[in-house]
Amino acid sequence: MKKGIGQHQIGETVDLYLLIKYAKKGIASNGKPFLTLHFTDKTGEIEAKMWGITPEDEAKYISGTVTQVSGDIQDFRGNRQLRLKTIRKPDKEMKAEDFMPSAPMAKEIMLEQVNQYLFEMSNAKIQRITRHLFKKHQQAFSVSPAATKNHHEYVSGLLYHVLSMLELARGIADQYVSLNRDLLYAGVILHDMAKVRELSGPMGTQYTLEGKLLGHISIMVSEVDEASKELGIEGEEVLVLQHMILSHHSKGEWGSPKPPMVKEAEILHMIDNIDAKMNMMDRALDRTQPGEFSERIFAMDQRSFYKPIFID
Amino acid sequence: MKKGIGQHQIGETVDLYLLIKYAKKGIASNGKPFLTLHFTDKTGEIEAKMWGITPEDEAKYISGTVTQVSGDIQDFRGNRQLRLKTIRKPDKEMKAEDFMPSAPMAKEIMLEQVNQYLFEMSNAKIQRITRHLFKKHQQAFSVSPAATKNHHEYVSGLLYHVLSMLELARGIADQYVSLNRDLLYAGVILHDMAKVRELSGPMGTQYTLEGKLLGHISIMVSEVDEASKELGIEGEEVLVLQHMILSHHSKGEWGSPKPPMVKEAEILHMIDNIDAKMNMMDRALDRTQPGEFSERIFAMDQRSFYKPIFID
Amino acid sequence: MKKGIGQHQIGETVDLYLLIKYAKKGIASNGKPFLTLHFTDKTGEIEAKMWGITPEDEAKYISGTVTQVSGDIQDFRGNRQLRLKTIRKPDKEMKAEDFMPSAPMAKEIMLEQVNQYLFEMSNAKIQRITRHLFKKHQQAFSVSPAATKNHHEYVSGLLYHVLSMLELARGIADQYVSLNRDLLYAGVILHDMAKVRELSGPMGTQYTLEGKLLGHISIMVSEVDEASKELGIEGEEVLVLQHMILSHHSKGEWGSPKPPMVKEAEILHMIDNIDAKMNMMDRALDRTQPGEFSERIFAMDQRSFYKPIFID
Amino acid sequence: MKKGIGQHQIGETVDLYLLIKYAKKGIASNGKPFLTLHFTDKTGEIEAKMWGITPEDEAKYISGTVTQVSGDIQDFRGNRQLRLKTIRKPDKEMKAEDFMPSAPMAKEIMLEQVNQYLFEMSNAKIQRITRHLFKKHQQAFSVSPAATKNHHEYVSGLLYHVLSMLELARGIADQYVSLNRDLLYAGVILHDMAKVRELSGPMGTQYTLEGKLLGHISIMVSEVDEASKELGIEGEEVLVLQHMILSHHSKGEWGSPKPPMVKEAEILHMIDNIDAKMNMMDRALDRTQPGEFSERIFAMDQRSFYKPIFID
Amino acid sequence: MKKGIGQHQIGETVDLYLLIKYAKKGIASNGKPFLTLHFTDKTGEIEAKMWGITPEDEAKYISGTVTQVSGDIQDFRGNRQLRLKTIRKPDKEMKAEDFMPSAPMAKEIMLEQVNQYLFEMSNAKIQRITRHLFKKHQQAFSVSPAATKNHHEYVSGLLYHVLSMLELARGIADQYVSLNRDLLYAGVILHDMAKVRELSGPMGTQYTLEGKLLGHISIMVSEVDEASKELGIEGEEVLVLQHMILSHHSKGEWGSPKPPMVKEAEILHMIDNIDAKMNMMDRALDRTQPGEFSERIFAMDQRSFYKPIFID
Amino acid sequence: MKKGIGQHQIGETVDLYLLIKYAKKGIASNGKPFLTLHFTDKTGEIEAKMWGITPEDEAKYISGTVTQVSGDIQDFRGNRQLRLKTIRKPDKEMKAEDFMPSAPMAKEIMLEQVNQYLFEMSNAKIQRITRHLFKKHQQAFSVSPAATKNHHEYVSGLLYHVLSMLELARGIADQYVSLNRDLLYAGVILHDMAKVRELSGPMGTQYTLEGKLLGHISIMVSEVDEASKELGIEGEEVLVLQHMILSHHSKGEWGSPKPPMVKEAEILHMIDNIDAKMNMMDRALDRTQPGEFSERIFAMDQRSFYKPIFID
Repeated sequence: MKKGIGQHQIGETVDLYLLIKYAKKGIASNGKPFLTLHFTDKTGEIEAKMWGITPEDEAKYISGTVTQVSGDIQDFRGNRQLRLKTIRKPDKEMKAEDFMPSAPMAKEIMLEQVNQYLFEMSNAKIQRITRHLFKKHQQAFSVSPAATKNHHEYVSGLLYHVLSMLELARGIADQYVSLNRDLLYAGVILHDMAKVRELSGPMGTQYTLEGKLLGHISIMVSEVDEASKELGIEGEEVLVLQHMILSHHSKGEWGSPKPPMVKEAEILHMIDNIDAKMNMMDRALDRTQPGEFSERIFAMDQRSFYKPIFID
Repeated sequence: MKKGIGQHQIGETVDLYLLIKYAKKGIASNGKPFLTLHFTDKTGEIEAKMWGITPEDEAKYISGTVTQVSGDIQDFRGNRQLRLKTIRKPDKEMKAEDFMPSAPMAKEIMLEQVNQYLFEMSNAKIQRITRHLFKKHQQAFSVSPAATKNHHEYVSGLLYHVLSMLELARGIADQYVSLNRDLLYAGVILHDMAKVRELSGPMGTQYTLEGKLLGHISIMVSEVDEASKELGIEGEEVLVLQHMILSHHSKGEWGSPKPPMVKEAEILHMIDNIDAKMNMMDRALDRTQPGEFSERIFAMDQRSFYKPIFID
Repeated sequence: MKKGIGQHQIGETVDLYLLIKYAKKGIASNGKPFLTLHFTDKTGEIEAKMWGITPEDEAKYISGTVTQVSGDIQDFRGNRQLRLKTIRKPDKEMKAEDFMPSAPMAKEIMLEQVNQYLFEMSNAKIQRITRHLFKKHQQAFSVSPAATKNHHEYVSGLLYHVLSMLELARGIADQYVSLNRDLLYAGVILHDMAKVRELSGPMGTQYTLEGKLLGHISIMVSEVDEASKELGIEGEEVLVLQHMILSHHSKGEWGSPKPPMVKEAEILHMIDNIDAKMNMMDRALDRTQPGEFSERIFAMDQRSFYKPIFID
Repeated sequence: MKKGIGQHQIGETVDLYLLIKYAKKGIASNGKPFLTLHFTDKTGEIEAKMWGITPEDEAKYISGTVTQVSGDIQDFRGNRQLRLKTIRKPDKEMKAEDFMPSAPMAKEIMLEQVNQYLFEMSNAKIQRITRHLFKKHQQAFSVSPAATKNHHEYVSGLLYHVLSMLELARGIADQYVSLNRDLLYAGVILHDMAKVRELSGPMGTQYTLEGKLLGHISIMVSEVDEASKELGIEGEEVLVLQHMILSHHSKGEWGSPKPPMVKEAEILHMIDNIDAKMNMMDRALDRTQPGEFSERIFAMDQRSFYKPIFID
Repeated sequence: MKKGIGQHQIGETVDLYLLIKYAKKGIASNGKPFLTLHFTDKTGEIEAKMWGITPEDEAKYISGTVTQVSGDIQDFRGNRQLRLKTIRKPDKEMKAEDFMPSAPMAKEIMLEQVNQYLFEMSNAKIQRITRHLFKKHQQAFSVSPAATKNHHEYVSGLLYHVLSMLELARGIADQYVSLNRDLLYAGVILHDMAKVRELSGPMGTQYTLEGKLLGHISIMVSEVDEASKELGIEGEEVLVLQHMILSHHSKGEWGSPKPPMVKEAEILHMIDNIDAKMNMMDRALDRTQPGEFSERIFAMDQRSFYKPIFID
Repeated sequence: MKKGIGQHQIGETVDLYLLIKYAKKGIASNGKPFLTLHFTDKTGEIEAKMWGITPEDEAKYISGTVTQVSGDIQDFRGNRQLRLKTIRKPDKEMKAEDFMPSAPMAKEIMLEQVNQYLFEMSNAKIQRITRHLFKKHQQAFSVSPAATKNHHEYVSGLLYHVLSMLELARGIADQYVSLNRDLLYAGVILHDMAKVRELSGPMGTQYTLEGKLLGHISIMVSEVDEASKELGIEGEEVLVLQHMILSHHSKGEWGSPKPPMVKEAEILHMIDNIDAKMNMMDRALDRTQPGEFSERIFAMDQRSFYKPIFID
C-alpha cells in the first residue's frame, strides 16, 4: 500500500492526494502574498508554503479542499516541512472525510462498548442520567475530537478517549474495591461530553463562542441539572455527578472551580491524565528513532522523551 | 440608650442580654469540660469561656439561645474576651432575631431600590431573566448574609452588598459611557444570588453540601440556563450573563473557571472587590484608635491598616 | 473630513501625511538594509517596512519627521501593516505636534479641572504640598503621556488619566463617607507625577536613566520629602502622602515596596486599575466588530475581549 | 473479639493493652511536668496526656512499652483523645510487635508475589540488577513502612505499596501495549527501596541522617550504580533505571532533580500517585460516616472528602 | 566568672541579675492574670511566666527594669524556659545598658574602621555624600541593631554588620578587579543606614511609623537625594548610589522596587546575604551539639542545619 | 598584534582565520538552502549566514573546521552579525585548538594551584576522597568548559571557575572562622566535577545522554560513594561531602533534591553564584559603552546592566 504523508521521511519526494486542513494568507518579507497550508491524510500532517500566489489560488486552496500535491520533505527548524513543487485539484471527486485522521476503531464498535458499561451500572439514577445524555449527544459525540490539538484531536477522538478511560477505570476498580463503579463510569462518560458544544466539530476544529465564554465543564454541569429535572430525578447522585464533572481538571488554574472532594472524582482526574499523556507520548515517540529524544510535548511542560535503544 | 457588646472597651464591666451564636464544648488542660461561647447582639460579637460546666449547662446554652450575662471585658492575645461572672436564661421571652447583627438599612427599602435598577433596564431579555430570578429567590435573598465571615456576614448582608455595588455601577457607567448598564446591573444582581443555596441562611451560617461541592458560581450558571429555558429566551444575552457570573472571581485560583472576557464582566469583578474591601476596612478601622494600626484583615493578605491621627 | 491612518481597513489604499514616530534600521535576510517605520497621526498608528534603502534615506526618514506617504494596508500576522508605495518629504513645513495622538480634551481645560479638585481640599498641609508639586511640574505634566505603551500613551495622557481618576474618586467618596477626600485627591494627583521624570516626554517616548534605575514611585517619594521641607510642613500628612505614592502599585512584584496600609491608599490603587483597564479595553474594542474577539491585551494577562452583538 | 483502640467511639470507656509509640515530656501551664503518650494497637492510634507525673513514670512509660490502660475517649479539637484513668505495666510479658499496625497481607505472600513479577521480566540486565537489589535489602524491605506518616506508614507498608503498584502496572501495561513491562516493573520495585536506609525501621519510625541529607532517591541511584558495577552490567539499561528512580517524584520541588524523560518513568510516577492517594482517601473515609466529610488530608492539599449517602 | 543566662543548660538552677526586655500581661486559662517576661543579659535571652500577679507586680516589672531572679531552667516545647522561684528589684542601682547583648567589638573601634574605608575612597562625590550621611547619623548608627529579630538584633548590630560586609567587600574587590571599590563601600555603608529611622533603637526595638509605612529603603533614597542637594553634588554618582540602596533586597517581593542593574549593586546584595546568613547559622549552631540538627531558622526557609561530628 | 573577531566593531571589515564552532543547514524563505555558521577565535564569537550553498559547501564547512573569512560586521536585532564576502579553507594546516576561547590562565598553573588547596586540607578522609577524584578526572577536568552557555563556556572554563571559587572560599573562611576549610575546599573542587561526564567536552559542547537523564549532581554523588568504597573510607565525612554536592544548586526547582543543611554547603552555593554572576556581568559589560545598558543576561532574570560613565 502507498505510504501516507505521515510516513515519509525528510529527504523523500512525495506525490499524494492531501486534504487542506487550514489555509492562511501571509505577506513575505519581499512584500508578496503567500499561503501557509496544513495538509493532512489519515497518516499525519505537514505544513507547506505556497509562494507568489494569485487571487485565484487563494480562492481555490481553502480549508476542506482535497488536492493533488507533489514536492520534497525538508527539515525546517526541527520539524518536517513540505517544499511544494506542484499542486492541483484532482480530476475525480474526493471526499474530505476520507483524508481526516480518525480513531483507530470504528465508532459503531466504540458506541457499542460504551453501552456495555452503561448496562453494567446498578444505581438507576446515575444510569438514567448518563444514558439520557449519552443518547442526546450520541451523534456529535461519536465523531467529535477530544481537543483542537495536543491529544486525541482527530475524528472520534473524544469517543476513543472515553472508551480507553473506561477500560482503565474497570481495571482500577477491580483492584481498589472501595471505588464505586457507577460513579466512576458515569464520570468518565460525561466528563468531556460538552466538548460537542465547546468545539465546532471534526473539520477545521475551533472553539465555539459558548466554548470560549463558558467552557465544556460549566456547560455540562448545566446539562446534568437540566437532564435530572427532565427525568424527575432528585438526590445526592445528581449533585455528586455534577461535582465529578466540575472537578475533573483538579485545580482552579486548570479550569476546575472546585477540586475533587469525592474519591471517585479524584480517580477520574487521574485516569483522564494517564490516557491523555499516553496518547501524547506515544504519538511523539512513534516519530522518534531509538536512541533519540522526541520533539518537545507542549502540554507536558515542554518535555522531550528519550526512546531507549534496548526497547526495539 | 444602653451600650451594646460591640461598644464596650477592655476593662469595662457589662450586664447585657446576648444571643449565643455558637457554643462548643472543650476539655480544659485540667481535664474538665468547658464551653466556648460566641455572644452577639446588634452591635458586635465577643467570645467567652464558661468553665466547669454541668451536662445541664451544655444542654441549656446552645446556639440560638438568648441569655442574660454579666462579666468583665479583658484582653486575650490582642482580642477582646468576656470573663463571665453570671449567665442565666432571661425571665421574659426574647426573639433571637432582635440580637442578630444586620444590614444598616431595612430590607424592604433595599428590595425597592434594587427593583428600581431592574426597572431601568432597556434590554428585555436581560431584564426578564434577572427579574425572574430575583423574584424566585427574593425571600431568602432579602435576609441572606453575603458570606460566613470576612465581609457582609450579617442578616441581609447579601442584599446590602448588591445594592452598594449597584450604586458604584451607576457612578462608573455614568463616567465611562461605553459600558452597557443592563449587563452591569444584571451582573451585580445575579453574581452572588446563589449564595442563598450555598449558605444555610442568616442564623449559624454554614456551607451547604451543594455549596461545598458546586459553589455559588456554578449553581447560578445553571439557574440562568434553566430560567432562560423556562422563559423561552434565547440568544447571546443568556450566554453573556452566564459568563459574567462565571468569571466574577476573575481567576481560576479564586474560583472562576474563565477570566472576564467581556468588558462589563471585568468591571463587575472590580466593583465587587471595592465594596467587599471597603466593608472589611471600615469594620476593622471602626475598632481602631487614631494613631494605631487595625487588627490584621485575613482576606486582604493579612494586612493591618493605619488610622491617621489627622483624620478625626 | 479625510480619514486618518487609524480609520483605514485592511485592503484600502491610502495617501496621507504621517509623522515618523520611530525609525529603526535592519538587515533583511538577503543582506540588504531596510527601515522599520512607525507612522502616526491623530487617529492611530501603523508599521511599515522600507526596503532597499540608501544612506540618504536613512538620514532623511528619522523619528519626528512628517512625511507624505502612499501605499496599501495589509494584514501581517494579525496586525495591520502599511505596504509603502511612495514616501517623500512634504512641500510645505508641517508641525510634528499636529500629528501626535493626544487626549480627547484640551490640556487647559483639564488643568483647570484639576485645580478645582485642589481648591476643594480642606487639609492645608495636604493641599499646599500637592499644589506646590502640581505647579512645579505643571508644564511637563500637561503634555506627558502616562506610559510608553499599554494605556494613555499619548500627548497629555497622564493628565487625562489623572482627571478621569479624580472623577472616579469623587463618586466613590460620595458613596463611602468614611473616605478622606483630601488624601484621595492628593494621592490621585501625585501618584504618577514623576512620570515627567521617568519618561522622556511625549515625542518618541522612552525611559530616562533615572526612570530605569529608580522609577517614578521612588522619585516622587523624594519629591514629596523635598517639597515638605521647602514648605516647612511637618506631620503625619507628609508621611501618609508618601505612603500612598509608594504603595499605589499594591504589591512588591508590581513595584511597590510596601502594600497599601491606609484605606485611601488601597482605594487609590483600585481607581488607578479601573481607569487603566477601561482605557485598554475601550481601545481594543473600538477596533473590534460586534460578534468578534478583540486583539489580546498584553497588560491584562493577554486576554482577548468579546464584543457582544446585542450591544450596538 | 474485643474491639481495638481504633474501633472505639467518642464517649466510650476502654480497658485495653496498648503499645506506647511515642512518649514526650512537657510542662503544663501550672508548671508541672506531664507526658504526651501516643498509644497504638493493630486497629489504630490515640493520644493521651498523663498529668502530674513522677520521674519514675517518665522512666517507665517510654516508646516501645506495652501497657494496660483504662479511660474515656473524648473529643479534643476535632480529634479523639484518651482521658487516662489508670495505666500500668501488664503482669505478663507482651511483645511490641503484636501491637503495631501492619499491612493487610502476610509479608511472605507479598515477597512471593513480587518474585513472580521479577520472574516475568525478559531483559536480563534489568532483571539481574533488580533481583540483586531486592535480595540485598529483602529483610528490611519486608518490614519497612513506606513513610513516617501520610500513607502506608505501618509494618510492611513499603512492600504492600510496591505490590499494589505492580498490580496497577500490569493492568496499565495490558492496556497500553507500547509500554515496556520490564522497565515498569523494575521501576516499581526499586523506586522507594532506599526507604530502608532513609527511615529507621518500623518501630518509632524516624528519618536517618543519610535520609535527611541525601534522601532515598539519591541513595538508590548510587545503589543501582554500585550493583551494576558489581554484576559487571553496562549499557543504557543501567542509566534508564537510574533515571526512573531519580525522576519518580516528577518535579524539582517534589524532590526529583530531573522530570521523567522516558515514557515508563512518567507512568511510574502516576501509578505511585494513585496508590498513595487511594491509601490516604480510603483510610480517611473509613473513619467517616456517610453524609459527612472526612478529616483534612494533609498530603492532598488539605482537602476533605465527602462520603456520599447513596454509596452504602 | 559567673555564667550568664545564655550559658545555662536545661535542668540547672540560676540566681542572676537580668534585664526585662519585654513584659506582657495575659490571662491564664483559670482566668487569673500573669506576666510573660523576656529576660536578657549579655550572654543571651530567656522567657518566663510570672503567675498570679498583683497590679503592683504589673507596674514594677516593666520593660527596661533590671531584676534579681532565681529559678530553674526547663524545656518548653523545645525551647528553654525559666521557671521563676523569686524575683525582686536589686538593692543597688544597675544600668540597663550593662545587660543588653551587644556586638562583639567596641563601637569606637568599629566606627574608626568604617572611617578607614571612607578614607580609601577616591571618587570625591561618593565619598562626600557617604561621609556626610555617616556623620549625620553616627550616634544612632553606632548603637542601632540591624533588625528586630533574625540577625544582628543587638546593640551596635547594624554597625557590626556593616563592618563585616566591608571586609567581605574588600576581599571580593581584591579578587574581581573590575569592581568599583568606592561604589561598593559606599553601598555597604549606606544600604541599611535608615534603620536608625525604621527602628526605635536598641532597647525594646520596634518598627516606627515611618518604618512601617515607608521602610528603610525608601527613607534612605530620600536622604541621599537631600544630602546631595545640600552638598551641591550632581551627576550620575547620586543616581547610582540611590539605585544601590533601592535594589539591595534584589526583588520586588523582598522589598526592592528595582532589581540590581549595576554590577556593584548585585554584589552588594550578595554580600549582605552572606553576612546575614553566616550570623544566623552561627548563632543557631552555637546552641547545637555535634551530631544534632539546629533549631529551624525562620528567615532561611525554616531550614535546620546539621553540625557534623567530625568538626570539633 | 592583529585584532580578533571579538574586538571588531559594527561597521568594520574583517579578513581573519576563524574556527567553525557550529554549522547548521536551514531553508530560506525563498526555498533555498543556507548555512548558519558560528565562527570563533580566541577573542570572541560571531554568527554568519552563508546563502545559496551547494552540497559541497555543506560538506566542507562543518563544526571544527578552520576557515579564512572576509566580510563586514553588521547589526542584526541588537547583536553583531558577520556579512560574509568570501570563505575558504586556508592553504596551510591550522589546529582547531588554537582558535578556541579558553581560560585566561594556563591549565598547568591552575592544576598546580588547586593541588595547593588539596595540600592544605587537614582532614585525611576528605583530602583522600577529593584528591582521588581530582586525579581520576584530571585530564578531562583540565579542559572542560563549565557549561554549554551562560558562563565559563570555554576551554578550561570549569577549572578556572573552580580556582576562582577556591580563592573566594579562602577569603570568606579567613573572615568567618567557624567555617570548616576542608569541607569548603572539597565542596568547591567536587561540586561540578561530573560536568566532565555531563558535557561532551570543549569542542562543540553538548549534553551527553547521562547528562540529560541524570545530571552532573547525581552522577557526582555516585562517584563519591564509589570512591569512598574503593578507598575504604567510611564515616560522616562521606555523607556530608555527598550532601554538599547534592545541595549546591540550593533549591528543588534549580536541580538540588535537598537544600543546604550544613553551613559550608550554604556558603558553597553562594560562592558558586558570585563567581558565575561576576563572569556573566563582566562579559556583558566588556561589550558595553559607558553610559549604556548591556545586552540582557538570560541567566540573571533577563536583566540588563548599566555601565556608569564615572567609572572609566
